[in-house]
Amino acid sequence: MGKDLLKGKRGIIFGALDEKSIAWHVAEHCVAEGASITLTNAPVALRLGGIQKLGDKLNCEIIAADATSLEDLENLFTKSMEVLGGKIDFILHSIGMSLNVRKKRNYTDVNYDWMHKTFDISAMSFHRVMQTAYKMDAMNEWGSIVALTYMAAQRTFPDYNDMADNKAYLESVARSFGYFFGKEKKVRVNTISQSPTATTAGQGVKGFEEFINYAEYMSPLGNASAQDCANYTISLFSDLTRKVTMQNLFHDGGFSNTGVSQEVIEKFSN
Amino acid sequence: MGKDLLKGKRGIIFGALDEKSIAWHVAEHCVAEGASITLTNAPVALRLGGIQKLGDKLNCEIIAADATSLEDLENLFTKSMEVLGGKIDFILHSIGMSLNVRKKRNYTDVNYDWMHKTFDISAMSFHRVMQTAYKMDAMNEWGSIVALTYMAAQRTFPDYNDMADNKAYLESVARSFGYFFGKEKKVRVNTISQSPTATTAGQGVKGFEEFINYAEYMSPLGNASAQDCANYTISLFSDLTRKVTMQNLFHDGGFSNTGVSQEVIEKFSN
Amino acid sequence: MGKDLLKGKRGIIFGALDEKSIAWHVAEHCVAEGASITLTNAPVALRLGGIQKLGDKLNCEIIAADATSLEDLENLFTKSMEVLGGKIDFILHSIGMSLNVRKKRNYTDVNYDWMHKTFDISAMSFHRVMQTAYKMDAMNEWGSIVALTYMAAQRTFPDYNDMADNKAYLESVARSFGYFFGKEKKVRVNTISQSPTATTAGQGVKGFEEFINYAEYMSPLGNASAQDCANYTISLFSDLTRKVTMQNLFHDGGFSNTGVSQEVIEKFSN
Amino acid sequence: MGKDLLKGKRGIIFGALDEKSIAWHVAEHCVAEGASITLTNAPVALRLGGIQKLGDKLNCEIIAADATSLEDLENLFTKSMEVLGGKIDFILHSIGMSLNVRKKRNYTDVNYDWMHKTFDISAMSFHRVMQTAYKMDAMNEWGSIVALTYMAAQRTFPDYNDMADNKAYLESVARSFGYFFGKEKKVRVNTISQSPTATTAGQGVKGFEEFINYAEYMSPLGNASAQDCANYTISLFSDLTRKVTMQNLFHDGGFSNTGVSQEVIEKFSN
Repeated sequence: MGKDLLKGKRGIIFGALDEKSIAWHVAEHCVAEGASITLTNAPVALRLGGIQKLGDKLNCEIIAADATSLEDLENLFTKSMEVLGGKIDFILHSIGMSLNVRKKRNYTDVNYDWMHKTFDISAMSFHRVMQTAYKMDAMNEWGSIVALTYMAAQRTFPDYNDMADNKAYLESVARSFGYFFGKEKKVRVNTISQSPTATTAGQGVKGFEEFINYAEYMSPLGNASAQDCANYTISLFSDLTRKVTMQNLFHDGGFSNTGVSQEVIEKFSN
Repeated sequence: MGKDLLKGKRGIIFGALDEKSIAWHVAEHCVAEGASITLTNAPVALRLGGIQKLGDKLNCEIIAADATSLEDLENLFTKSMEVLGGKIDFILHSIGMSLNVRKKRNYTDVNYDWMHKTFDISAMSFHRVMQTAYKMDAMNEWGSIVALTYMAAQRTFPDYNDMADNKAYLESVARSFGYFFGKEKKVRVNTISQSPTATTAGQGVKGFEEFINYAEYMSPLGNASAQDCANYTISLFSDLTRKVTMQNLFHDGGFSNTGVSQEVIEKFSN
Repeated sequence: MGKDLLKGKRGIIFGALDEKSIAWHVAEHCVAEGASITLTNAPVALRLGGIQKLGDKLNCEIIAADATSLEDLENLFTKSMEVLGGKIDFILHSIGMSLNVRKKRNYTDVNYDWMHKTFDISAMSFHRVMQTAYKMDAMNEWGSIVALTYMAAQRTFPDYNDMADNKAYLESVARSFGYFFGKEKKVRVNTISQSPTATTAGQGVKGFEEFINYAEYMSPLGNASAQDCANYTISLFSDLTRKVTMQNLFHDGGFSNTGVSQEVIEKFSN
Repeated sequence: MGKDLLKGKRGIIFGALDEKSIAWHVAEHCVAEGASITLTNAPVALRLGGIQKLGDKLNCEIIAADATSLEDLENLFTKSMEVLGGKIDFILHSIGMSLNVRKKRNYTDVNYDWMHKTFDISAMSFHRVMQTAYKMDAMNEWGSIVALTYMAAQRTFPDYNDMADNKAYLESVARSFGYFFGKEKKVRVNTISQSPTATTAGQGVKGFEEFINYAEYMSPLGNASAQDCANYTISLFSDLTRKVTMQNLFHDGGFSNTGVSQEVIEKFSN
């Protein structure tokens, strides 16, 4: 059902792991809308996930890159521009992993080496991707860079742990780098703050099932799915949104601005 | 350059006055994207402006409606559904006028009758439009309602006067009604907080030229134009954004999240 | 336990009805901290409530004023300055009433005459109080004006109805007028966004008991009481907060920045 | 002019370097309000600054602690509780330093090792301080923890560099830890977002003079000084604000909610 919204555009999609990944759906939609893309993920994720299947299906190249390595990122941009035949028009950053979450350390008992590593992967990686593109002058004018984030950056969800703080940093990087990318290269940078989504990563979080239920009851339009998010991302990559930049955009069926819903409050009657 | 993004959809556009109006551009873009629309404005605006020219060009009906009159609004929805052949998929509310601004009363010396009237026109009208559509069950599922607003709702711009407070009310109505419209009808409601735009209405505000200069210097991508706003509105009417609701969306080249720009700060060196 | 924080200051307290009122507690705390005050409320509220008891206890004058009447407000400031012996240092605005709530009209079925009247009482009254004080030059430098509000101005609580939109307007008035009052008179203007509080007014809202339970479970420090709010208000009237202005200050035990609490999420396990 | 607002309370003040430091003024005000405190800073800062003079003047102990070292922080809490004779009631975190700023690397050309180190010092340090206090159960109920931050966490100021992102992380840590500290220990955690202040650290930032001028023109009450900030901090340490938690509180003369001021806009007339 593509409408050629991204016809002639070139993009790089970070973070597709398997069919549940938001990045997976974004990649599919980008190609359906006429874009040419490369896929990338960390070497270990390439081995574990099914990304080769996606590359085959979409007929696009997969380039391994550890987003904490500047060399890998430089190689990724060089190769992507070669393969795609020119500068890049859009990037999706869908990267995040907390060692403290994974190893079940409570937020009041974190391991600081892991906190450092989590920061490197989940927040600094976004700066590295942009600084690499900026210094290589790899983005076309009116290009669009999007990172996925979560509302824990604004409000506390007890099991979201230090990932919340990293998302706050990531959203700030979008604003800070968005200023310079806008001024100097006419490139926009935004984050999408997505409903809790049943990805392989999301499901690892303690209490995730209960939480996704709660969010469903709280959101007037229900939770946004990975497919919904892919649609929204397309709108942000397209030329319809050229003057939207440095924004954190809630894509959550209304959760973020619902104080309480009728269904939730009824659980609290005596 | 339409891509049939709104093919088969029916809409109502409030507030097109002349070729500078944002609503004028939105109407043109909607039709270019395959939608059928009706145009509406207050009887006095229909006489003063050039909307008949727009109706002729787009081959669409013009239905007079005073947005402070429930009877007029009911008539508007009834006729629009007749003319367009079914329920409505999208609405643009682009209505605002402050008598205190127009009559050059400072915010610390307002006339309260005018403040009431301004509220009726600029803020309550949005509730009236939605309540009318809601009670008549005039919206299709997954429809989209958008109102235009300005950042003065969040931060003070001294010449924006009581329009600022009315925009705050309007944005709240989007959230409050968005909750019920989402739950009951799967309709989304959002506001676009647009750059200062050189419309006939905008130009009436004292100090407008200076302000638009300032905003241009402050926005990393420059001010968003009326055409840019039309593009963005299309994305919000399209199926790409189905789960975005109850949001106030800044469309301003980055102004809202720029604390200061290099160009502005240089004016303050000694 | 007063510490003379308001010694020598003169204030006007709007909205004390009975012992459950936040304004009642604020009045008591102000006097305990060394201030001289006058009390005011609408004539009908004076008849219904027990404010005379409070006036007797605190030995302070009660001046009837309908906050929708400029004449009454001018008289209130004139008399207060006479009685207290000089210009005013602080004002509490604790006024709000929705006819649509009171008469149990849903937000999607409001009566627009009542919506107008609600706006007049709940939102415009704050502008009227400030414009009166401003034009009469009735405030001392470094004075402090506070209005009470609720988080429904930011996020929807379905039973809060059009009061939500009015609180959004009221908070905007605080910013808009705060700009001019700051520049011209060095007076600060803020709003306190208070936890749901079991006042006589609050208890009239449908579903109030359930809601206050929910808020208690969501707030890491529990709901803030009327006494807590009085303490916080004292800090904003005192000289400790001279440079805080045009802010909406959440006083809610952490509710506003809690996405979900452990206790709430447990209600959603299967 | 103390009013015994902190009588009987015990506190730890991080970050006093010299008489320009905000922490210096906070320390003086705390003692004037009846508190007993210890002072702490990194060993190198103790050598360079004049903190010994402050310790002598206030008759309070100075305990060296590198805020990136858990051992130092444990020692600090242990010794402070010994010296002060009990658990701690309040903490001020006033720590921040960007190596990229100091070494004049633009935000689009940062050194990532320095970015890591900046994060360790400026953002993780706040988590370390709180986790140490939490695990040692070193805080009294209704205690108060405050960190200083800057509005660059919300909006971009081009010369503020990666300190902006670190302040966003720091503010998120306040919310995240505030949830647990509130629930488990009834301790509140907030950040004060202060006007640009001519401290020794602030003055090192490029374009600082121009910026402080700009902020002065934009703020209806003018910039808040270090002394003003000390006053405000006292209010947050006192029992007047027990239910305020997980908040970022702007203390800036109204800058944050001023879209533009008359003085600024006049610079943009032709």
